[in-house]
Amino acid sequence: MWAVIGTIIGRRPRMRAWQFEGTGKPIALNEVPDPQPGPGEVIIDVKAAGLCHSDLMYMEIGEATMPFLPMTQGHENAGVISALGAGVEGWKVGDVVGVCSSGVRPPLGMFTHGGFAGKLVANAPDLARVPAGLDLSLAALATDAGMTSYHAIIKAGGATAGMKVGVIGYGGLGQIGTRAAVLTGAEVHVAEMKEEVWGLATAAGAASVVRDAAEWSGQDFDLVVDYAGFDTTQKAIDAVKRGGEVVQVGLGRPTFTIATASILGKRIVGSLGGTVQDIEEVFDLLLRREIEPAYTEIAFEEIGASLERLRNNEVTGRLVARFGD
Amino acid sequence: MWAVIGTIIGRRPRMRAWQFEGTGKPIALNEVPDPQPGPGEVIIDVKAAGLCHSDLMYMEIGEATMPFLPMTQGHENAGVISALGAGVEGWKVGDVVGVCSSGVRPPLGMFTHGGFAGKLVANAPDLARVPAGLDLSLAALATDAGMTSYHAIIKAGGATAGMKVGVIGYGGLGQIGTRAAVLTGAEVHVAEMKEEVWGLATAAGAASVVRDAAEWSGQDFDLVVDYAGFDTTQKAIDAVKRGGEVVQVGLGRPTFTIATASILGKRIVGSLGGTVQDIEEVFDLLLRREIEPAYTEIAFEEIGASLERLRNNEVTGRLVARFGD
Repeated sequence: MWAVIGTIIGRRPRMRAWQFEGTGKPIALNEVPDPQPGPGEVIIDVKAAGLCHSDLMYMEIGEATMPFLPMTQGHENAGVISALGAGVEGWKVGDVVGVCSSGVRPPLGMFTHGGFAGKLVANAPDLARVPAGLDLSLAALATDAGMTSYHAIIKAGGATAGMKVGVIGYGGLGQIGTRAAVLTGAEVHVAEMKEEVWGLATAAGAASVVRDAAEWSGQDFDLVVDYAGFDTTQKAIDAVKRGGEVVQVGLGRPTFTIATASILGKRIVGSLGGTVQDIEEVFDLLLRREIEPAYTEIAFEEIGASLERLRNNEVTGRLVARFGD
Repeated sequence: MWAVIGTIIGRRPRMRAWQFEGTGKPIALNEVPDPQPGPGEVIIDVKAAGLCHSDLMYMEIGEATMPFLPMTQGHENAGVISALGAGVEGWKVGDVVGVCSSGVRPPLGMFTHGGFAGKLVANAPDLARVPAGLDLSLAALATDAGMTSYHAIIKAGGATAGMKVGVIGYGGLGQIGTRAAVLTGAEVHVAEMKEEVWGLATAAGAASVVRDAAEWSGQDFDLVVDYAGFDTTQKAIDAVKRGGEVVQVGLGRPTFTIATASILGKRIVGSLGGTVQDIEEVFDLLLRREIEPAYTEIAFEEIGASLERLRNNEVTGRLVARFGD
């Protein structure tokens, strides 16, 4: 009956959206009204949306903190601007953009609808301009995986030529971080349990690869970036020299324990997300093929099942949903 | 017999020194030859030497790391220069100085002889000039307790006007740190279990005093300095805003555990010691009576028994041995 009434009064156009409806419930593919842009906002026709372990975390912890339900997920998005709200300057319909997932507005998919949908409302200051020629799957993953790994090692860590840098975890983030640091001229050492990816790390320019960061103890690194967080923070602290820094990014374990005296004269910086500027710097590295992250494209309809595969650790490299073309 | 031979061959002048001789042994009052200055060194006739919990820690863990034994203890010293080694510039016999305990040269009492002795060899770049009119007991405690607490909150923490700052632990270090931060114009809140010192904290300018730093959770402090380290680091992290900083100074417990996600966007800086510049800034605050730390003077002969009192937590305020006048 409501559908009939909707039709009669001139129903707003609708789109499909993968939505979180409550703790323990499977993510649902719903039909919802197209969004309208508020002042300072733009509408993006989403073309690419990366799948991220944080999606799973949001849906695990989110019911208590999300301001409303259901909440469309997806915080790693690229697409084309299709409408502008009042007061938006510097952007026009047709511009190709990525959306910063940790920008001025709180995280997409946690406090506001994300991009696992035909259209996405974005805050204009959170837009990053995608350069001509950059594949939109790469542009999407640059907005979160790229930004987060790059910000951690380059901005929070300050990796630069002449520094001795350790990277813990050569996964989706670690591969980008390693390469970004190598490109600065830093001497980069990788710790990664999976020996099958050691060759990739070496090919990316790593000076050495070890199985366990504990092997670095006392080696006076200037910086260690921990993209793993599996009881690795203390090993990172032990690897850096006095005055050195550990950047914590990975959340592999819910807690970490540190010998209090071991941190004196050192510091642990928890890096979270990044900025539009970081994203645009990553866009540039991707465009020039200086960084070539591994990813697999899926269809919009596969997002639900693919998140389950992610939860079950059945995925290697990033998954990016492509749709809307 | 050796004493007789010593007398016959023209024995070098000797002094008394409180020395660590090995793990589990009580600190011993020995007679040892007066030291001679090497190149770049000066001899200081020690006038005041503060007693510190770190003395006890050095003697607990030191046997494995000290390059020789017995090792004269005492790393918080002020006195008068009585001899100059080759190449020392900018100092003369008679200058009144404090010695930086965490300076260019590794810690006194751990890697080189300390100042629980008539004379002390110091590295010229580690000397801080004591201004005329400053009591030498205050000068001594400025070189470690003063420097460490000041450096942590002012230099590592960057406390300044407009900031909301938490201080955990209103003991020997916390009282100096609180006052130093209040003098910058920062809004300073104190967490201290002992209610009997709350009045002192308020008199020093604290905006509020709570019993447990857990009460600060979510209050968006810019900075928390943890002078306690008794399972307080997580409480400090929870008290600071995103972008905020925790400075860890206290070593109350051997380890601390942190919820990994809670550190993202925040940082923990382990502050250790400080610089000659810090000491001279503390000298100035002490001279102007902007900071008036509590201390008790003892005699040189009382150092051994007083360290035992310190170990048994029978001491309030700093103990400073005065001698050599």
